[in-house]
Amino acid sequence: MVFKAQVGSVLRKTATPKTAALRSACAARRATPAGTTFGRAVAAARGFSTSPIRLWRPTQARQADITRTSERYPDLKRDSRFAALTREHVAYFKELLGENGVVDAVTDPASQDDVEPFNGDWMRKYRGHGKLVLRPGSTEEVSKVLKYCNDQRLAVVPQGGNTGLVGGSVPVFDEVVLSTSRMQTIRSFDEVSGTLVVDAGVVLEAADAYLAERGYLFPLDLGAKGSCQIGGNVSTNAGGLRLLRYGSLHGTVLGVEAVLPDGTVVDDLCKLRKNNTGYDLKQLFIGAEGTLGIVTGVSIACPQRPAAVNVAFLGLSSYDQALRAFREAKAQLSEILSAFELMDAGSQQIVRTVRPDARRPLEGEHDFYCLIETSGSNAEHDTAKLEAFLEDVMGKEIVEDGVLAQDETQVKALWTWREGITECLGHLGGVYKYDVSIPLPELYKLVDDTRAQLESKGLIGDGDEFPAAQVVGYGHMGDANLHLNIAVRRYDEAVETALEPFVYEWISKRQGSISAEHGLGLAKKKYIGYSRNETMVGLMKQIKNTFDPNGIMNPYKYI
Amino acid sequence: MVFKAQVGSVLRKTATPKTAALRSACAARRATPAGTTFGRAVAAARGFSTSPIRLWRPTQARQADITRTSERYPDLKRDSRFAALTREHVAYFKELLGENGVVDAVTDPASQDDVEPFNGDWMRKYRGHGKLVLRPGSTEEVSKVLKYCNDQRLAVVPQGGNTGLVGGSVPVFDEVVLSTSRMQTIRSFDEVSGTLVVDAGVVLEAADAYLAERGYLFPLDLGAKGSCQIGGNVSTNAGGLRLLRYGSLHGTVLGVEAVLPDGTVVDDLCKLRKNNTGYDLKQLFIGAEGTLGIVTGVSIACPQRPAAVNVAFLGLSSYDQALRAFREAKAQLSEILSAFELMDAGSQQIVRTVRPDARRPLEGEHDFYCLIETSGSNAEHDTAKLEAFLEDVMGKEIVEDGVLAQDETQVKALWTWREGITECLGHLGGVYKYDVSIPLPELYKLVDDTRAQLESKGLIGDGDEFPAAQVVGYGHMGDANLHLNIAVRRYDEAVETALEPFVYEWISKRQGSISAEHGLGLAKKKYIGYSRNETMVGLMKQIKNTFDPNGIMNPYKYI
Repeated sequence: MVFKAQVGSVLRKTATPKTAALRSACAARRATPAGTTFGRAVAAARGFSTSPIRLWRPTQARQADITRTSERYPDLKRDSRFAALTREHVAYFKELLGENGVVDAVTDPASQDDVEPFNGDWMRKYRGHGKLVLRPGSTEEVSKVLKYCNDQRLAVVPQGGNTGLVGGSVPVFDEVVLSTSRMQTIRSFDEVSGTLVVDAGVVLEAADAYLAERGYLFPLDLGAKGSCQIGGNVSTNAGGLRLLRYGSLHGTVLGVEAVLPDGTVVDDLCKLRKNNTGYDLKQLFIGAEGTLGIVTGVSIACPQRPAAVNVAFLGLSSYDQALRAFREAKAQLSEILSAFELMDAGSQQIVRTVRPDARRPLEGEHDFYCLIETSGSNAEHDTAKLEAFLEDVMGKEIVEDGVLAQDETQVKALWTWREGITECLGHLGGVYKYDVSIPLPELYKLVDDTRAQLESKGLIGDGDEFPAAQVVGYGHMGDANLHLNIAVRRYDEAVETALEPFVYEWISKRQGSISAEHGLGLAKKKYIGYSRNETMVGLMKQIKNTFDPNGIMNPYKYI
Repeated sequence: MVFKAQVGSVLRKTATPKTAALRSACAARRATPAGTTFGRAVAAARGFSTSPIRLWRPTQARQADITRTSERYPDLKRDSRFAALTREHVAYFKELLGENGVVDAVTDPASQDDVEPFNGDWMRKYRGHGKLVLRPGSTEEVSKVLKYCNDQRLAVVPQGGNTGLVGGSVPVFDEVVLSTSRMQTIRSFDEVSGTLVVDAGVVLEAADAYLAERGYLFPLDLGAKGSCQIGGNVSTNAGGLRLLRYGSLHGTVLGVEAVLPDGTVVDDLCKLRKNNTGYDLKQLFIGAEGTLGIVTGVSIACPQRPAAVNVAFLGLSSYDQALRAFREAKAQLSEILSAFELMDAGSQQIVRTVRPDARRPLEGEHDFYCLIETSGSNAEHDTAKLEAFLEDVMGKEIVEDGVLAQDETQVKALWTWREGITECLGHLGGVYKYDVSIPLPELYKLVDDTRAQLESKGLIGDGDEFPAAQVVGYGHMGDANLHLNIAVRRYDEAVETALEPFVYEWISKRQGSISAEHGLGLAKKKYIGYSRNETMVGLMKQIKNTFDPNGIMNPYKYI
C-alpha cells in the first residue's frame, strides 16, 4: 500500500518519515469569482457530473426576485404591539446619530436600494421589509437608540456582518436594523495575558491580523472571517474550524459589554480568566442571537499563535475508516491537533464543478476525505508527530491515500477544499442547509438516510424535473458537527415537507442537536422542541421576559 | 551562571540540553500527618523561623470550640419565612429516603455528633446549627426532597465534598443539609468523543482514575481532588491548577442535570460539543453555588491524557523576573504548558516548617519560586522544549536556579511544594484567605501592600502579642490568580478590620476580582459590589427570583 499524492509521492510506506520527500501537493487557491459561469464542456471532459445545476447571478441583480420572508411564511404575522416608523422617529435618530449613522427609506423611498443589503441574507433565503438602518458609533449611542426604541415600541434587529445562515440578522417585517458596522475599535490588548478587548463591529479577520503581529491568535476561525463581526460571532456563539483545539466561546470569552432594551449598559467586560462573583451573566448573551440586548464589546482570551501549522488531506474508503482515523489522530496528535474535518465525495465534486481549474489534492476517487490540521510551537516536532501518525494509519490501512502540505500556500490550497464548499454550494440553484450535532458513530448516516428519504418521494435525480439535485455532508468531525446540505434546482415545498420534520426527528431520536453552531434564527425557531424540552424552553422564556419585557429585540425568531 | 539543583546539577549552561544529566532532584512526598506537632528545635537548627505559630489539634476534638457562624456575625438573622423542622418533616424524609438516607438530630439529639461534620467547614471558620442531613441516592429523590422543602418552606444547603473555603456549603442556622455523597455513579463514557457523564457526588479523583484507565484526563485538577465532588466543582466553578491549559468549566462542561427548588428536573445533560439551541442555561448553574437548584449530573468533555508530564521548579530573585519567565514560558512552551505556579519565599518557609523532613527542591534561598508543568503526547519532544526553555531563561539571567523532575515520584514531590501550602497553612493558628484575580503586572503587589497595612496598625510581628504572624502569596500565576494568606496566631477583629475592606478596595481599583475561583459563599456575599456593579447584581437577583421564588436554596449567602 502506497501513501501518495497526485503531483508526487508524498510518503511511501518504505520511506522513513524523516527523509521522505515532501513535495508540492496542490496548487494555490484559484477561486472562481462569484457569479462567473463555469464551462460545462470542461467539466464533462474531466468526468464530472454535468447535471444542470444552475449558478446564481450576482446578488444585486436579483435582490428584488427574492420572495419576502413574510410571503414565504404566511403564518408569520406582524406583532401589532410594535409601532410603525414615522417621520418623527427618523428625525430623532438623525439628530442622535447624524446623517452618516442613518440609512433612511422611511422619509426617502429612493434610499430603499441602500437599505436592501441589510434586508436580505447572503444565502438569499430571507428578505424583510425594513426601511431604516441605524449605525451607531459608540456604546452610548446604542444605549440611546435602544432606550428610544423601547419607549416607542419599535422592534429592532441587531446586525453584524450578516453572514448567518438562519435568517437571524435580517428583518422579517419592518424592524429597525441596528448595524454594529461602525464600531470597529480594538480597545486594548495585554501582551502578557493575551486578553483582547474589541468593539462588537470589529471584523474577525481584522482582529486576527492585529493579533498575528503580536504573536497571538484569535481562538475562533470560520469561513466567513473576512466579513463576520466579533459581536455577531459572540451573539451567535459561532463554533467554526478550531473549536476542537481552543474550545467554545463560552470558555474563551472573558467578558461582554451589552446594552439592554431599556438602554442599560451591562458592563461585564472582565479581562480576567477567573472571576467567581455571582451568576455568569455574560454567558446568556453568548448565543442569545440579539434577543436579550445588543453586544457592544467583547473581551477574549487569545492563545499564542502557533509557529508551525501542518495540514494533511486524506482519502478514505468509508465513514467507519474516518472514525478510526479520528481516534488515532486524537491519541497520536493530541495537543497539536487543531482541526479534523470530514468531506464526502459529493461535497468535493461540487467544489470541482464550480472551480474546475483548482488542482485536486488527490488523484483517485475516494468516498470520504479528511483534512487534518496540526498547530504547534515547533515545526520539527509537529512534522515528526504528523508523519508518524500518517505512517501508522497507512500501515493499518485506515487511509487509502494522502498528501501533506509543504508550505503556507499549500496549506491554504488544501483548506479551500473544505472551506470552499459552502461558497461553491451557494453558486447552485439553491441549498437547504442543516447544521447539526450527532453522536459520532451515526454522524454520517443522516446524509444517507436523507438521500433515501428524497428518493422515496421521487424528489431527487439527474433531470430538471427533479427539484433536488444532490445531498452532501461535510463538517467539523472533531466536534461531531455535520453540515447536511441538499442542493436543489429550485426551492420547493415538496422538498421542504420531505425534509422537515424528518431531519429533526431523526436527530432528536439520537439526542443530537438541531443547531450545532448556526443558531436558531427564524429558520429553526419552531423546531427547538426537538433539542430542548418544555422545562428548558419555559425557563428561557422567563429569561427573555426578564431582559426584554416589551419583546422588541429581534422578534419572531429564536424561541 | 549555573542552572543547578540541590541534589545534583541539573542543567549546566555548558552542557547540551540533549545530553545534560538529569538526576534525582528531590525526595518523595513525606507529608506530616495532620495534627502532628512539628519539632521546633529541628526547625531552628535549619534556620527556619521559630516564631510560635500554633498547630491545630485534629478536627474532631475541637469541633465544639468553633464559634457558631451566627455568633460571629450577629447581624445575620434567621429568615422568619422558613419553617422550623418538625417530627413530621423528619418522618416524611425517612419514609422517602430510608434510614440510610437521613442523619437526624431533630428527633434524636444523640445523633448531633453525626450531624456536626456537615455543620462545619474544614477551615473551621464556619459552623451552623443544622440538625438534619439528607442523603438522597438519585435525581428523583433529590426532586422529591426539594419539592417537599419548597412546599414546607424549609431552607436547604447543598453539600458536596465540603472542601470550600467561603462557608458556602454549611448551614448558617438550621438549614437542611442535602448531601450528594451517595450519588456516585459514573453514568457513561464515550471513548471516541471523550464525553464523561457522572452523578454529582462522584469524587474528582475517582473520576480521573476512571478516565486514566481509558487514556483520558479530567480537565480540572485541584488540591482537594481526593474529597471534592464534581457536582460541587461545577456549582462553584472550580478553577484549579490546569485552567491555563484546559480552560474553565464554562467551556468544558457540556451539560448539566439540575433540580429546581420546586422539584423540576432540568435535563440539560447534553453530550455534544456544539449545541446552539437557545440560551445556554446550564451556564447559570456553573458557579451558582447551589442558589438556583442542585446540580445532580454533569456531562463534560475530557481531553486525551498526556503521555508525558514534566515539571520544573525555579528560584527567582523578584516578581518581575517571574513575570518575564511566564512570558517566555507561554511563547516557548505554548501548547504543552499546563501550569505556571507562583510561590513566594514565605509560603515555602511554611511548608518547610510544617514538613521539616521534606527535602527541599533547591538549595539556596530565593525570593520567589515558580513551578512549571508541561503535558504532551511525546516525552522526547516535550523534554527538548523544556530544556531549551530552561537554557534560554538561564542564559538571560531571568532564573537564579532550577531543577527538573526526573520521574513521576519527583513530579509529585515538586508539586507538594505548591499544592501542600494550603494544607500546611491549615496547621497554623488560623488563616485569613483571599482568592483573587489581579492583572498580572500588579499581582504580587497586593501581598506587600497587605503586609504594610498590618504593620502600620501594629498587628503583625514575631511575638505572641501580635495577632498576625505572616502574610504570604502564591497561586496560579498563569491565570492571574493570587492566593493571599494572612497566617494569624488567633482570629482577631482588629486584623479583620485592617484587612477589610482594604483588600477589596485595593482589588477593585485595579479591576480585579475579589473571588477568582473560590466563590462568594457567606464570606464574600457583602463584598460583591467591589467586583460587580449594581446593574449586574440587580439582574442576578432577578434570575435568583425566577428560579427560586421562595428563596429556600442556600440562603444568607452569595448575592
